[in-house]
Amino acid sequence: MTMTLGELAVRFGCELRGDPAATVETVASLALADARAVSFLANPKYVGQLKGTRAGVVILDARSAAHSPVPALVAANPHATFARVAGVLHPDPPLKPGVHPLAAVAPGARIDPSAEISAHACIGEGARIGARSFIGPGSVVEHHAIIGDDTKLVARAFIGHHVKLGARCIVQPGAVVGADGFGFAPDKGAWIKVPQVGSVVVGDDAEIGSNTCIDRGALEDTVIEEGVKLDNLIMIAHNCRIGAHSALAACVAIAGSSVLGKRCILGGRVGLTGHITLCDDVVVLGTTFISHSINKPGVYSSALPSEEAGVWRRIVGRIKRLDSMARRMRALEKHTGFSAANLDSSED
Amino acid sequence: MTMTLGELAVRFGCELRGDPAATVETVASLALADARAVSFLANPKYVGQLKGTRAGVVILDARSAAHSPVPALVAANPHATFARVAGVLHPDPPLKPGVHPLAAVAPGARIDPSAEISAHACIGEGARIGARSFIGPGSVVEHHAIIGDDTKLVARAFIGHHVKLGARCIVQPGAVVGADGFGFAPDKGAWIKVPQVGSVVVGDDAEIGSNTCIDRGALEDTVIEEGVKLDNLIMIAHNCRIGAHSALAACVAIAGSSVLGKRCILGGRVGLTGHITLCDDVVVLGTTFISHSINKPGVYSSALPSEEAGVWRRIVGRIKRLDSMARRMRALEKHTGFSAANLDSSED
Amino acid sequence: MTMTLGELAVRFGCELRGDPAATVETVASLALADARAVSFLANPKYVGQLKGTRAGVVILDARSAAHSPVPALVAANPHATFARVAGVLHPDPPLKPGVHPLAAVAPGARIDPSAEISAHACIGEGARIGARSFIGPGSVVEHHAIIGDDTKLVARAFIGHHVKLGARCIVQPGAVVGADGFGFAPDKGAWIKVPQVGSVVVGDDAEIGSNTCIDRGALEDTVIEEGVKLDNLIMIAHNCRIGAHSALAACVAIAGSSVLGKRCILGGRVGLTGHITLCDDVVVLGTTFISHSINKPGVYSSALPSEEAGVWRRIVGRIKRLDSMARRMRALEKHTGFSAANLDSSED
Repeated sequence: MTMTLGELAVRFGCELRGDPAATVETVASLALADARAVSFLANPKYVGQLKGTRAGVVILDARSAAHSPVPALVAANPHATFARVAGVLHPDPPLKPGVHPLAAVAPGARIDPSAEISAHACIGEGARIGARSFIGPGSVVEHHAIIGDDTKLVARAFIGHHVKLGARCIVQPGAVVGADGFGFAPDKGAWIKVPQVGSVVVGDDAEIGSNTCIDRGALEDTVIEEGVKLDNLIMIAHNCRIGAHSALAACVAIAGSSVLGKRCILGGRVGLTGHITLCDDVVVLGTTFISHSINKPGVYSSALPSEEAGVWRRIVGRIKRLDSMARRMRALEKHTGFSAANLDSSED
Repeated sequence: MTMTLGELAVRFGCELRGDPAATVETVASLALADARAVSFLANPKYVGQLKGTRAGVVILDARSAAHSPVPALVAANPHATFARVAGVLHPDPPLKPGVHPLAAVAPGARIDPSAEISAHACIGEGARIGARSFIGPGSVVEHHAIIGDDTKLVARAFIGHHVKLGARCIVQPGAVVGADGFGFAPDKGAWIKVPQVGSVVVGDDAEIGSNTCIDRGALEDTVIEEGVKLDNLIMIAHNCRIGAHSALAACVAIAGSSVLGKRCILGGRVGLTGHITLCDDVVVLGTTFISHSINKPGVYSSALPSEEAGVWRRIVGRIKRLDSMARRMRALEKHTGFSAANLDSSED
Repeated sequence: MTMTLGELAVRFGCELRGDPAATVETVASLALADARAVSFLANPKYVGQLKGTRAGVVILDARSAAHSPVPALVAANPHATFARVAGVLHPDPPLKPGVHPLAAVAPGARIDPSAEISAHACIGEGARIGARSFIGPGSVVEHHAIIGDDTKLVARAFIGHHVKLGARCIVQPGAVVGADGFGFAPDKGAWIKVPQVGSVVVGDDAEIGSNTCIDRGALEDTVIEEGVKLDNLIMIAHNCRIGAHSALAACVAIAGSSVLGKRCILGGRVGLTGHITLCDDVVVLGTTFISHSINKPGVYSSALPSEEAGVWRRIVGRIKRLDSMARRMRALEKHTGFSAANLDSSED
């Protein structure tokens, strides 16, 4: 879509420094943008990157704007404004309302006439599909599931029976929302399946990444609150609750019944044990393992950065003998009659 | 489904303390159950949770039963009995035997007339589908695969050619059983694909989680023995064998040709290197990395719990200098003429 | 397929020691092979495994050939030659060119007449499918995606709009190539989606494993160079570049904008943070976390092998008190007037 800089300034409440009649039609990085492209500078620290850009316009903050060699749109939050501008210039293809002849829709499903049901989608009995929703090819919406307005299942998503998805959600390909939780009772050396009779409730404006799995609850529901963003290949076990506007990077795994507060940020590959609670505004660095509840907002980590393999092997040997080393040091302290152990009174 | 307490007591061999004519129709937690719901107390330690419950009946052990304010079903294994009761009260929807008109079934496939083949399922030449099996929407059963009786592919499962699934298995959405193993021979700086001519054999009563992958063997078969329970997003590489009644939590990854004994339990995110063997009854705590065979039943771990990021950074610095620290200590011991190194004779 | 040893020798340029008229028709391990099977010995170190084999022929190097009790095909690279022989003896089923009546192909898609479009495949407007390509059941190829010649989507793959796949690629079931990257701008406590307008470009001869996800770029493209082999459940975030002939084992996760050189090998469960670069020929052992760029070819690790849980718990306690222990040692050194700290001048 083509827009003038003037239109962008008005629509997104920016101050324009440049010709309002100039037009743009795409977005690009500062380095690769040409005169038809909108670019942005999110962080004033990198103001040097403006040098040499040929973008049609750059979205940036007031202080950086003075350094722009090309037209500028001044915004309080340049990254968010850029996101909105990009959404306008690169809109989703228009919906084709109706049901594709190769879709399978149960007679008792209620589908808003403005929704698009793609080829090979399967909608179960009693399911409800909201206005302007898109049910992509190969998606399965089981019986009595509810899909909110303006929600998009890109393709091949699975939405289990009785699951509720809010409005304006996006579910990426291969995501599985509402399959059975992992519940088994041990009995005479084997496992008896515990029926998972809870469901999943997903709030408005959530995004669920490719091949991510959110299990239905055992007795009560698994809950994903509004605005939560889940990246790909994430595992959310039964009865978890993910607080509003939390963002979880790829390959995070959260065991059953754990609760995340609002606005938490989990880096890639983070693992949480079950039945713990993280308060609001907890940030966990990638690869970290969280085994206890956290009551204090802050940044947490347990990741070990790599070394050359020979060096690392030697360190691992030392780690494995740490207990012995600590006892040798204690003995040495006793022998010399000197100890700074008050530095750590828990040392034995 | 509605049942009387008397019916439940008879069917599941429990002692009933309460009115046999009272009815229940659902299951719920002790806290949320009302008079129509069955609840349970798995662990007598939490007998205090009985207080205030309004459940129609609670399944529990004999000792706890005295504390129940509501009717009680006394069972030797309350959790397993609850699982069975829940299965009766919340049965799967009845099968609709036959082949959906939008399914694609090869002429040479043999499908038991009592099985249900859903919309958009695809069944290959020579495949066999057992009695009362459910092939969910979008599932792919390749040529010559065999699906046992009463087995359920929930939706969008992939079962590769010649794979054998036992009876009463459950395959959750997105699971991939029998895609090629990761086998390549290096040749002049590139990789030559090694055809994976083995298959996958899955025993009776196995459950395979959402988006879990079990690769077919390179030359011989990958084997999942009876009663194995696999959670979501698990990776089982080619030629592994998972012993009967083992349970693997989400995101476990097992490299090629490794063998798990019977009744092993692996926590979430556990990784096993290839070509190793775990004996029967090994328990591995979540996040642990197993790089060597284990010959002794027991509990194993290598997980590092998180700290506040600044504290952790300081610890990592110390870990990276451990070798130096050990050598300094040795020097100090030499200098003082005192050493407790016999505490660890392997110390250099 | 049945072939004579003579035919194999000629076709693959091997020296045959044995009867050229003898026939074989399958492949098997040395231990299980019978007279109809081709086996191989990749590593001369295991020459003892030849003893007792009943294979119809063994592919091995010249030095080992003397020890073979059965006919031998002498090859410079026995494993690669075996891979090629296995491919000839176990060919893919022949393609059935054309479009299945239950596939959904947009009118503007261009499909080579020699390609096979399976049941329940969905091909979008403007997409192009190359010669002799196989689009397996349930696969989704969005609008304007390009699939090269002789490329195979086994089943249920997702190829996003404008994604380009090279020739002779294999995409395993459930793989998602070209879904949106994880890009959001924070704004007043919520997240604004940043449209992901880049694409994914995959070179020739790449293989993409089951349920693996490769996200499309934010502004520029995510790139998988030729000959790259990706195992299952791998996460490649937006704007990454994976160098030619690199091989990544299962469950690897690479955060956004990171770059791998050529011929890198990453073990299972390896994690890379974003915006870093690994040079050519880097090998990373399984489970390792890479948080910094690597400029030197070599082997890298940060994996911690497991211990019995009680032992490990004690070690973790020592790790958590390492900083205190280091400070105690420094105090002891001061007290004794002796320090070997020059061993590590960074020690404080």
